[in-house]
Amino acid sequence: MTIEDFYHNEITTLPDSKTRGAWIKMISTLQNHICAALEATDGKSKFQEDQWIREEGGGGKTRVIANGNVFEKGGVNTSVVFGDVTEAMKSQLKSNASVQAYSDQQLKWFACGISIVIHPSNPFVPTVHCNYRMFELYGKVDGNETVIDRWFGGGTDLTPYYLFEEDAFHFHSTYKKVCDGFDKDFYKKFKEECDGYFVNHHRDHERRGIGGIFYDHQRPSVSKEISFWMDFGKACGDTFTTAYLPIVEQRKNTSYSSENKYWQEIRRGRYVEFNLVHDRGTLFGLKTNGRTESILMSLPPTVRFDYEHHPQPGSEEAKLVEVLLKPKDWVEGR
Amino acid sequence: MTIEDFYHNEITTLPDSKTRGAWIKMISTLQNHICAALEATDGKSKFQEDQWIREEGGGGKTRVIANGNVFEKGGVNTSVVFGDVTEAMKSQLKSNASVQAYSDQQLKWFACGISIVIHPSNPFVPTVHCNYRMFELYGKVDGNETVIDRWFGGGTDLTPYYLFEEDAFHFHSTYKKVCDGFDKDFYKKFKEECDGYFVNHHRDHERRGIGGIFYDHQRPSVSKEISFWMDFGKACGDTFTTAYLPIVEQRKNTSYSSENKYWQEIRRGRYVEFNLVHDRGTLFGLKTNGRTESILMSLPPTVRFDYEHHPQPGSEEAKLVEVLLKPKDWVEGR
Repeated sequence: MTIEDFYHNEITTLPDSKTRGAWIKMISTLQNHICAALEATDGKSKFQEDQWIREEGGGGKTRVIANGNVFEKGGVNTSVVFGDVTEAMKSQLKSNASVQAYSDQQLKWFACGISIVIHPSNPFVPTVHCNYRMFELYGKVDGNETVIDRWFGGGTDLTPYYLFEEDAFHFHSTYKKVCDGFDKDFYKKFKEECDGYFVNHHRDHERRGIGGIFYDHQRPSVSKEISFWMDFGKACGDTFTTAYLPIVEQRKNTSYSSENKYWQEIRRGRYVEFNLVHDRGTLFGLKTNGRTESILMSLPPTVRFDYEHHPQPGSEEAKLVEVLLKPKDWVEGR
Repeated sequence: MTIEDFYHNEITTLPDSKTRGAWIKMISTLQNHICAALEATDGKSKFQEDQWIREEGGGGKTRVIANGNVFEKGGVNTSVVFGDVTEAMKSQLKSNASVQAYSDQQLKWFACGISIVIHPSNPFVPTVHCNYRMFELYGKVDGNETVIDRWFGGGTDLTPYYLFEEDAFHFHSTYKKVCDGFDKDFYKKFKEECDGYFVNHHRDHERRGIGGIFYDHQRPSVSKEISFWMDFGKACGDTFTTAYLPIVEQRKNTSYSSENKYWQEIRRGRYVEFNLVHDRGTLFGLKTNGRTESILMSLPPTVRFDYEHHPQPGSEEAKLVEVLLKPKDWVEGR
């Protein structure tokens, strides 16, 4: 099997290929579209692709950009991975009802997603993260192998180094508009989930950024079928460029001092702390023999860790920390 | 209670103060001695002390040096902490026989130790880490509160950015000499424990450095009484300067290029990965409301994370990675 076989959903060991195939195609198209848009904005550097095959099943396409006009380091990664549900995975999925119900069977799993982290060089341009994924579990029902569980998750969040309220408003209201098109309750719910997730609990519960939206374990239902969640993931994914790139364009030529850069590198340290200490995806990947270089492409290029670094009270830096300690309602609160 | 009360072992809520008092005094003296020696070597920067009090009991003295002639960032921290055995701590100590045997009681605990991490600016001078500690558990036996368990742990390990075999030999043989004075089996055993502990499992099991010695859960016995382990900890602690400073003196004036500095910062990234993903002490501290700034003083001042950074085959950088992937016997193997 080659990486293209996996990306064309030619996975003969798994049943029910329709949803899977459509999702893989969407993720793959999204990767191309986002890379092209980021390259156009950067104007200098191009993404380099590394294809990798996973011994236990599947593989991925890791695309990395570095030392651009705008982007100092960034990755737009996709993966199409599958295999047997191992003991390690079972303990991760221990609260999953299907895993419990089919505990006498050797189940199989499948996951496909896109994961993006972009670190610009200019401290006035925010870092952004985005991830959309689908997970399926397979088991035998009446002797026939079939999908026994399926869920969707994802989100996009912004990590500025300096706070521009209009950028926060633009970012959040753009995602609110997408959410509102699907369910009027989504934005509030997924914004709160985001604020509750990207938290450095060991730093007085400071958030790593100003949030965005985050959702997980969303299972198709009678009122929200498979196509609903596929469309929602696609809409959120497509919105990445609309939500992020206007902010990049607005800030990328702002001149900055070495003090601004220093502050960015201090804050990047907090980004590292969150990803390595708290982020479930990163830790799960590192501890289950995931591809380390693809997982850790999320880490910022240059970072500082100072002892007891605190911004001057009243400074622009302090203003940022204030909203990280106490998340704001950017859309309604304006 | 003030910090000095704790450091003078005036802790009226705990029984059997003799061993505790002697250990606190040893650790405190060691802190003074090591700070003075490092300041003398640096010749420019002085340690700044922050004293902190822990709400649940005890506190510490965090001493940090920064932007010196030799040392870019470093900490020599001690702490004297105690309190009730909480549920969080119980789950950490679940394999502890005393905690199991006295499960019907509200136990108390005490810990005192020194923890050192020194990051020099010159990439030819290695980073060093060292930690020595004693832990006690208290419960009621026949109605009288007493020590029901006590153990010692510690170690010192070296993280060079360029490999000088004579430095590795000096460092290891210095600790072998100390170990041999206590038990001829110690060096081999504790060297292996060190090589097995400071491992980035997610990086092909690469070690963070060339090791040293590491021991934990050492309980006094008939042949190795309390005084034995106290003396061993003291001897290892006193050896820190003898093992490390001659290497610093030897390398601190080596001229270096920006490529050498770049490599140091890449390797410092691996140091961050180990401390935040794998180090039990760091994670326990961060997750049990320890003093974050004192715990994370261990992180290097400036760090780089590149995607797929690999040294040129045959280069000095590659030579280092080779021994990190396959630890050597520095003393016997020479």
